[in-house]
Amino acid sequence: MERRIIANIKSLGIDMIKRAGSGHPGIVLGAAPIIATLYKDHLVINPDNPNWLNRDRFIMSAGHGSALLYSTLFMSGYNLSLDDLQNFRGLNSKTPGHPEYGITPGVDCSTGPLGQGFANAVGMAIAEKKLKAMNSIFNYRVYCLCGDGDMMEGISHEAASLAGTLRLNNLIVIYDSNHVSLDGSTDLTFSENVVDRFISYDWNVEFVKNGDDTKSINKAIDRAKKATRPTIIVVNTVIGSGSLLEGSNEVHGKILTDDDIEQLKRKLDISTQPFYVDDDALSVMKKQISDRSLEKYNRWTKEFNNLLSVDTELNKFVSNQEKINLLNYDFKFSNDLNEGTRITNQKVMNYIGNNLMSFIGGSADLSSSTKTYLTDGGVFSSSNYKGKNIYFGVREHAMGAIANGLALSGFRPFVSTFLVFADYLKPAMRMSALMNLPVSYIFSHDSITVGQDGPTHQPIEQLTMLRTIPNFDVYRPCDAKELVGSWNTILNKNNPNALILTRGNVPLLQNSKMHEVEKGAYIIRKEQGRLYSIIIATGSEVNIAVKIADEIYEQYNIDIRVISMPNMDLFLKQSQEYKDSLLPKGYRNIVIEAGNSALWYRFVYNENYLITIDDFGVSATTTDVLKHMNFDYDSIKERVIKLLK
Amino acid sequence: MERRIIANIKSLGIDMIKRAGSGHPGIVLGAAPIIATLYKDHLVINPDNPNWLNRDRFIMSAGHGSALLYSTLFMSGYNLSLDDLQNFRGLNSKTPGHPEYGITPGVDCSTGPLGQGFANAVGMAIAEKKLKAMNSIFNYRVYCLCGDGDMMEGISHEAASLAGTLRLNNLIVIYDSNHVSLDGSTDLTFSENVVDRFISYDWNVEFVKNGDDTKSINKAIDRAKKATRPTIIVVNTVIGSGSLLEGSNEVHGKILTDDDIEQLKRKLDISTQPFYVDDDALSVMKKQISDRSLEKYNRWTKEFNNLLSVDTELNKFVSNQEKINLLNYDFKFSNDLNEGTRITNQKVMNYIGNNLMSFIGGSADLSSSTKTYLTDGGVFSSSNYKGKNIYFGVREHAMGAIANGLALSGFRPFVSTFLVFADYLKPAMRMSALMNLPVSYIFSHDSITVGQDGPTHQPIEQLTMLRTIPNFDVYRPCDAKELVGSWNTILNKNNPNALILTRGNVPLLQNSKMHEVEKGAYIIRKEQGRLYSIIIATGSEVNIAVKIADEIYEQYNIDIRVISMPNMDLFLKQSQEYKDSLLPKGYRNIVIEAGNSALWYRFVYNENYLITIDDFGVSATTTDVLKHMNFDYDSIKERVIKLLK
Repeated sequence: MERRIIANIKSLGIDMIKRAGSGHPGIVLGAAPIIATLYKDHLVINPDNPNWLNRDRFIMSAGHGSALLYSTLFMSGYNLSLDDLQNFRGLNSKTPGHPEYGITPGVDCSTGPLGQGFANAVGMAIAEKKLKAMNSIFNYRVYCLCGDGDMMEGISHEAASLAGTLRLNNLIVIYDSNHVSLDGSTDLTFSENVVDRFISYDWNVEFVKNGDDTKSINKAIDRAKKATRPTIIVVNTVIGSGSLLEGSNEVHGKILTDDDIEQLKRKLDISTQPFYVDDDALSVMKKQISDRSLEKYNRWTKEFNNLLSVDTELNKFVSNQEKINLLNYDFKFSNDLNEGTRITNQKVMNYIGNNLMSFIGGSADLSSSTKTYLTDGGVFSSSNYKGKNIYFGVREHAMGAIANGLALSGFRPFVSTFLVFADYLKPAMRMSALMNLPVSYIFSHDSITVGQDGPTHQPIEQLTMLRTIPNFDVYRPCDAKELVGSWNTILNKNNPNALILTRGNVPLLQNSKMHEVEKGAYIIRKEQGRLYSIIIATGSEVNIAVKIADEIYEQYNIDIRVISMPNMDLFLKQSQEYKDSLLPKGYRNIVIEAGNSALWYRFVYNENYLITIDDFGVSATTTDVLKHMNFDYDSIKERVIKLLK
Repeated sequence: MERRIIANIKSLGIDMIKRAGSGHPGIVLGAAPIIATLYKDHLVINPDNPNWLNRDRFIMSAGHGSALLYSTLFMSGYNLSLDDLQNFRGLNSKTPGHPEYGITPGVDCSTGPLGQGFANAVGMAIAEKKLKAMNSIFNYRVYCLCGDGDMMEGISHEAASLAGTLRLNNLIVIYDSNHVSLDGSTDLTFSENVVDRFISYDWNVEFVKNGDDTKSINKAIDRAKKATRPTIIVVNTVIGSGSLLEGSNEVHGKILTDDDIEQLKRKLDISTQPFYVDDDALSVMKKQISDRSLEKYNRWTKEFNNLLSVDTELNKFVSNQEKINLLNYDFKFSNDLNEGTRITNQKVMNYIGNNLMSFIGGSADLSSSTKTYLTDGGVFSSSNYKGKNIYFGVREHAMGAIANGLALSGFRPFVSTFLVFADYLKPAMRMSALMNLPVSYIFSHDSITVGQDGPTHQPIEQLTMLRTIPNFDVYRPCDAKELVGSWNTILNKNNPNALILTRGNVPLLQNSKMHEVEKGAYIIRKEQGRLYSIIIATGSEVNIAVKIADEIYEQYNIDIRVISMPNMDLFLKQSQEYKDSLLPKGYRNIVIEAGNSALWYRFVYNENYLITIDDFGVSATTTDVLKHMNFDYDSIKERVIKLLK
């Protein structure tokens, strides 16, 4: 019967790809025995409740294997119809070209860009360890299927190394090792010994010589379950197994010919009728899953519901209702506060950390500088899975993807590094945005004022890069109050976000407002009489703009309004009325921001009104850098005065 | 004497950091014996000619060790004065906060963002192998100093794995293993066995137990020189050795107190006078370098000059004068050519590859899709270092940084992947731009028209990301002619660039012009009579704009000019006169581009005139995606007509 189940998963996958006219047959035929074994004999899941909190997770890191995943989910009894399979890769289908979180029941994570899924799985494994440390009722495993491409991507090395250090023995990675990638044999480019490599990361390594040998696969998974360390099961497979093109790179992403499909199905001893379903195979597969899982599911659910009625914290955590209102809390900022927003942020984050069970995160070895350590949180380590502070190491990319895995498991993760190194984790941020996950990316050292470390450490284009990611909020608060307002807005929304912080000191501004941040922008300096001009500024440039406006009013009696715009995107989403009330037509607005000009053109008459920075900085003291870049206080003031004439 | 040299390198480094008020004492004190040994006893260099083509290269991948590098270069006799050291991290100094290529004699590469230098070194080692295969006169080694941070970054794993496959035995990496990073002991996050890891990559591994034991360091380097594989020398060091803070993470990036410096210098048995130079030590160090190198240098230079007088190809290669004029070559495009620019590009690149010795590159396992394979180039492999096609594997990030290493060695490298995966190599592109290296990043599959692979594979914000990198040119040609014009402009400039190519077909346009690309934009459809409106478009949207303009003229007698803008940045650099001649004031321009709107606001009256895409796409057939995103031909035409009313 197992043979028939595998044959059916294969034939459905191949039919889907044929119908869609595109897809990846190679992995469907090569890895079907692996994934069939996993679902049939191991995963503790309830296809009727794909969101069961204590389910085993499965991530198809080799996301191009979507057809294989969908046909397996179908055979496992998830709410997918034959119609859904037939609409593979079609508009609005439940079966998109690569797995997309939130679209397909049973898909735990969006994948496709290689290596991400591996690191997401590490994040999910961290989440399970943390959940179990919070409450012993949690107890599940994270499985991940990877291909050669995943193994080559640097992010998988980063995540694997950290998983070894953290001894995440709830993580089982299955490596579909077929030695063929899109461009040909991996001999050309990938001769490393993956077994030895994972041993060096302190992983448990299992090896399956023949990818069709489901008995050996089963045994390897059984051993992995008992391991004290994360496990990688290296399974030798043949890409496109059974196809006339088997073993070649051509079969990776090319649809099979009709002849090939016919001979393949004959070989598989399955009907050649497209989208044929072997009802016996289907019901055996479903039964085996429910025989293994259903009782556990029922028992767990009952126990959990009992728990929920007494444990309100857990209740809030799991129902995603863990909201806190920061605006009502008094952080006791003194009026003459003058410090970097990264410093203030530590206080705010510590308050959040002490009040939000789901708050967990860390830094890529820069917490001493980004100041995101949660003082009372403890360090998350193999000897303390209760910890809220994760030491990611100098691994920005994996850090972002691990945060995605944490968010997919119900947490509100934060990660931090310098703004310029946002570049290193852009691919992970994009996945946060695509999956709409509440990950907070905290970027300090936010401009050329970094100074002596020089241009490699001075962000220029990064703010624009972040602001142009769809569904991604960027906050650049000007002081402590806006910072609190930013966090309050972040915590009341569910999408990914970046919080941009200064290294150097900024004063607490008299007229800054916490509660206005949610509108994206507001008037921080109202004109005294007749409005003459408007300056828009963000972050560390707001106090400069206000001071310049004050001085110009005093010296020339020219009346300037200053708009603080901590979140451009939120402002643009306000009513036209609100926008016009801040920026009435007919004025030549001036923008001051220590970053790239790209997004600011919409607010100004022409480029002369943009006091921004489009070139790389230099290594020098902050004062010297600012002067050199024509961005010190006096230069900015002079430029503003010139524009008013 | 060796002891005195090392003491002086340390004391100068510490004094520089003290004077600057910032820097990284930890690595100066921990790694000085390593780098002193390397320069004193191994590097074949001529400090009087730091650009000697056959010199050994040294990359300080742990770029925060700049003070150590500069003090060593000073002691080695490079053109650095005590004044230069005293201006460490100062404006316009020769000694910036992190090593910057082109500023300091002896600095072969800009470093700072961790992991980059490691991959740059792999690129340089590939370059040496290729040069030697071209002409046996080349024969040098590439040395690289790495810290724990470099080892954690994914890019170093990617590059190391490839270096092993390519058997780059001219590469010697020295790993300053002090088990301490900025946030504390690496035990927290980095327990992997680096020795085993590099063995798994098929590297030769040497181990030095005590980082002060220069004899062992010497022996390890000697063995590395004879190895048949790349070598990593793991040297156990003590961070901040000799400081009162030695062994702690505090000493990583905190300046030492006066007391600490005094006790340290006493321990080192060197004068406590700031910036003291031990003249004996200085002259011994210089002499040892020249004794080892000068004769080799003179002999090589003579032989090389003889070679140059007979080998014009080599001559052109080394003098960077290897120009070709593509505009004069007839690619014989038929008038009804209708193909993806990625397909046409293969023909153009093959012509370049056949005529440009310095042209070398490859893809991150997507050459079958990006079509950048050089048919006559051969594959670069351990058995054929002559090859021009590098199989980078699925390692986008290392690919970019390796290309930087190739460019630093005189090559004109190209790399390719899908546009959406530009995210993976952003940090390397930024380094290309900072160092002004002629690397061509070729990105195909440039819009939502990718279709069925879905939003993870459909670029949206990437064009803006690329265009906002300072000193980075982005070309998006509309057809075969503009493609040739793009390459011609690229080859006649020396800065990094991206070439954005379509997957789907675009027609050869009657009025497209090769030679106009260098101006960034030009009129591709002139109005027949009275100008009514202007459409600006790029790439695959240009033929759409022209067709819409033609149809609207026919149907409504409304006369629209169409501007093709293959390179926005080049256009913005033209004279105001030229810009006004294309885009006269007083018209409401319309922009059509299948990407983010950010940079286009400067050209339009308001956002309604931007026919662009700011949201993620969906998985569906190209036709369905375009309709869904309101970006199919009919929708665009309708939107244009509405704007004209």
